[in-house]
Amino acid sequence: MLDELREIVGDANVLVGTDAAAYETDWRKRYTGKSLAVVRPANTEEVAQVAKLCMHHGVSIVTQGGNTGLVGGATPDGTSTQLILSLARMTHIREIDTANDTMTVEAGCLLQSVQEAAEKAQRLFPLSLAAEGSCTIGGNLATNAGGTQVLRYGNARELCLGLEVVTAKGEIWHGLKGLRKDNTGYDLRDLFIGSEGTLGIITAATLKLFPQPAAKVTAFVALNDIASAVQLLSLAKAELAAGLTGFELMNAHSLALVAAHYPQLAMPLPLESPCYVLLELSDALSEPHAQGLFERLLEHAMHHAIITNAAIAQSLAQSQHFWLIRESIPLAQAEEGLNIKHDISLPISRIAQFVESVGAQLEATFPGSRLVNFGHLGDGNLHFNLQAPRSVDHAIFLAENQERCNALVHDAVHARGGSISAEHGIGQLKAASLAHYKSEIELVMMRSVKQALDPQNLLNPGKVLLK
Amino acid sequence: MLDELREIVGDANVLVGTDAAAYETDWRKRYTGKSLAVVRPANTEEVAQVAKLCMHHGVSIVTQGGNTGLVGGATPDGTSTQLILSLARMTHIREIDTANDTMTVEAGCLLQSVQEAAEKAQRLFPLSLAAEGSCTIGGNLATNAGGTQVLRYGNARELCLGLEVVTAKGEIWHGLKGLRKDNTGYDLRDLFIGSEGTLGIITAATLKLFPQPAAKVTAFVALNDIASAVQLLSLAKAELAAGLTGFELMNAHSLALVAAHYPQLAMPLPLESPCYVLLELSDALSEPHAQGLFERLLEHAMHHAIITNAAIAQSLAQSQHFWLIRESIPLAQAEEGLNIKHDISLPISRIAQFVESVGAQLEATFPGSRLVNFGHLGDGNLHFNLQAPRSVDHAIFLAENQERCNALVHDAVHARGGSISAEHGIGQLKAASLAHYKSEIELVMMRSVKQALDPQNLLNPGKVLLK
Repeated sequence: MLDELREIVGDANVLVGTDAAAYETDWRKRYTGKSLAVVRPANTEEVAQVAKLCMHHGVSIVTQGGNTGLVGGATPDGTSTQLILSLARMTHIREIDTANDTMTVEAGCLLQSVQEAAEKAQRLFPLSLAAEGSCTIGGNLATNAGGTQVLRYGNARELCLGLEVVTAKGEIWHGLKGLRKDNTGYDLRDLFIGSEGTLGIITAATLKLFPQPAAKVTAFVALNDIASAVQLLSLAKAELAAGLTGFELMNAHSLALVAAHYPQLAMPLPLESPCYVLLELSDALSEPHAQGLFERLLEHAMHHAIITNAAIAQSLAQSQHFWLIRESIPLAQAEEGLNIKHDISLPISRIAQFVESVGAQLEATFPGSRLVNFGHLGDGNLHFNLQAPRSVDHAIFLAENQERCNALVHDAVHARGGSISAEHGIGQLKAASLAHYKSEIELVMMRSVKQALDPQNLLNPGKVLLK
Repeated sequence: MLDELREIVGDANVLVGTDAAAYETDWRKRYTGKSLAVVRPANTEEVAQVAKLCMHHGVSIVTQGGNTGLVGGATPDGTSTQLILSLARMTHIREIDTANDTMTVEAGCLLQSVQEAAEKAQRLFPLSLAAEGSCTIGGNLATNAGGTQVLRYGNARELCLGLEVVTAKGEIWHGLKGLRKDNTGYDLRDLFIGSEGTLGIITAATLKLFPQPAAKVTAFVALNDIASAVQLLSLAKAELAAGLTGFELMNAHSLALVAAHYPQLAMPLPLESPCYVLLELSDALSEPHAQGLFERLLEHAMHHAIITNAAIAQSLAQSQHFWLIRESIPLAQAEEGLNIKHDISLPISRIAQFVESVGAQLEATFPGSRLVNFGHLGDGNLHFNLQAPRSVDHAIFLAENQERCNALVHDAVHARGGSISAEHGIGQLKAASLAHYKSEIELVMMRSVKQALDPQNLLNPGKVLLK
């Protein structure tokens, strides 16, 4: 079969042995598999031929983009029988249509390249997340990535109008439509988006573009509790409408970690409050106009005792600095040591009670542990992470407590109508949890859809659905 | 079986014979069927029992909301063997969660009731369309309805976060989540949305709410051609950003019909231009602020010779008057006589060329016919209708030319990457066209999904997919 693969993509693009190693481990080095080979097709036609060959030989396909996933969704199992299909060579930007505000790109384009191509055309592609310099748009779509601007622009799903997909049979579905309204049959597009390579291979996408805002301004505010942050969110949505493009919560402990590990990062406000919010306003007029809107909002919030302190960025550099503080939290966490991560979402109305009650439970259950609670509050999405106590060996703490901690957090999330994976997906990491928390009715429907589109179970088997 | 149905929903809620007649004909009286009975369950549990009974007896189910569809999707066939399942009694608003900006409503709620309940909670539910006083939210979701504010808020699909669905087996899927981010498995929600009752029965939905704008202002402008309207759209998106909530094209002939049949409706501008656009701006600050933004935009547009004349509404009443003119076009069309309707969408960049070229073809092919071209240009969606020539019998003209005219328009739309049904769906009317224009690969995937979720083909058979 390797010879047949080489005929399709050329010798240089079938990697085995040590050449394949980098593709067989996820970037956080939590999962390592062993593949039959890594194949790197140049275009959709080659992907289709590879898929046909795999169907013929009964070989399963693990599609990989930038290999930046957090749930082991793009790592093969250890049997040396699965083919890694890397789309990294498919980086062509096929079309930018400014009048239609769309662009059509191949799956292997880096998210940052997509953003930059949009910018060059004086448009905004708003998907934005920490890995943007190395993740691919195909991976973003396969996992329905979220990030920092979902509040205004939606997840990857909402940013995609059409797809080109290679099916399990090795056929090409030409679904690259640039239409905002199209009601002709079942929504296959959204079935492929978020299916983590288990239903089809996304090879290209038509994406939505937006006008570039004239200014982006941030504000940094201090609050007494999360309930106040939720009130501030309502007020900000009412006063700024769709101008509100970011609303990030940071609890005191998460900022304390940043201050401890990156002392050079000046804090906009004294660290003496239980929580903080970073707001971002994108304005179609100007920076002063945006600052004026922020001043008005924060005066109202101060007047109603929703916030206790506030700083409005006075320049683009200062806005970027505020963001840098927020973005340094995951890095500061890693500097501090290992931690148990949760990527949860909840109805926003239930978040304050959740954090209070579950936070207290965690403190009682794991004495000395520290809650690093931050994230996209505007979307109801928290990174609700437990840092091991200072005094213990972090690796041992994790090994002993991770499962119990996950169960405690996920049970509490599930009981409140929340999600155990807001933006990272299921992959290998959460496939068992998915089976546990989803109703049998939903699991049966998911399995029947999988069976319908991939009857031989060759596309990323074992990911999302255990069987 | 009727006795068993009566046991589930009560005698009064199983209608047969003349009592069933109103449900057996669509409101435009283009389709009439003959049902086994009409059953009107009170709640989801009863829907599930009815579905189970139908599965047991092999009886198919045609789910019906407000019976306002335009494609015969909710009308049974003529065999007296299909059950009409009317959800009109399920009108409970289960929850409004203002902090989460969501509401959970039953499928039989009128769209207008949903809008009003949101308004009472000082929120906006933005789905808005001509039939809102009689269509139901369940029907809106089953057909992925569009309407006038898609430009800003999306289709029904984008306004829905979670669903409760009764499956073909009569099981209840509890998918009523109020989460903006949730990546746990396949997107079943979007599979049911837009599937026109062929994959499951939507019984309730959790919907997104938005802040109410402080002001809504409209402007009415005259332009020399559609290319200019497309330029104006780009400019308006850049200057008004998400404040732009409506962008409706009206060609000269469509306004001439309004002027002829509703002479009491004063036109804001003299009718001497080839086309007109109605713009709507929703503003978080105030009416004067919105008017100021419009003045700035229209000055720029005038300066660049994109528009030739403009009027900005000076009051809410005037804004509503401008809308009334736009909304009177379909009524004026009907007053004028029969016409051949098309509900198409195109990439916005291709619209001007499409209208010019296909308009000329239609004039050449059907001499004396008149093109009534209007609609949601901001979404690329046109109602591109051909009014029969004044001098001929309209019914005969339609009977003789409808098929040829449809083929001409739909072929041209298809060739340009457009959609033959932008917002009305497929139903019976376009099932054959769907089979004609979709690729075999897509049809096979659609059929396999149908088979997966409705293996006995009991849910609205013959709609969307011919077989």
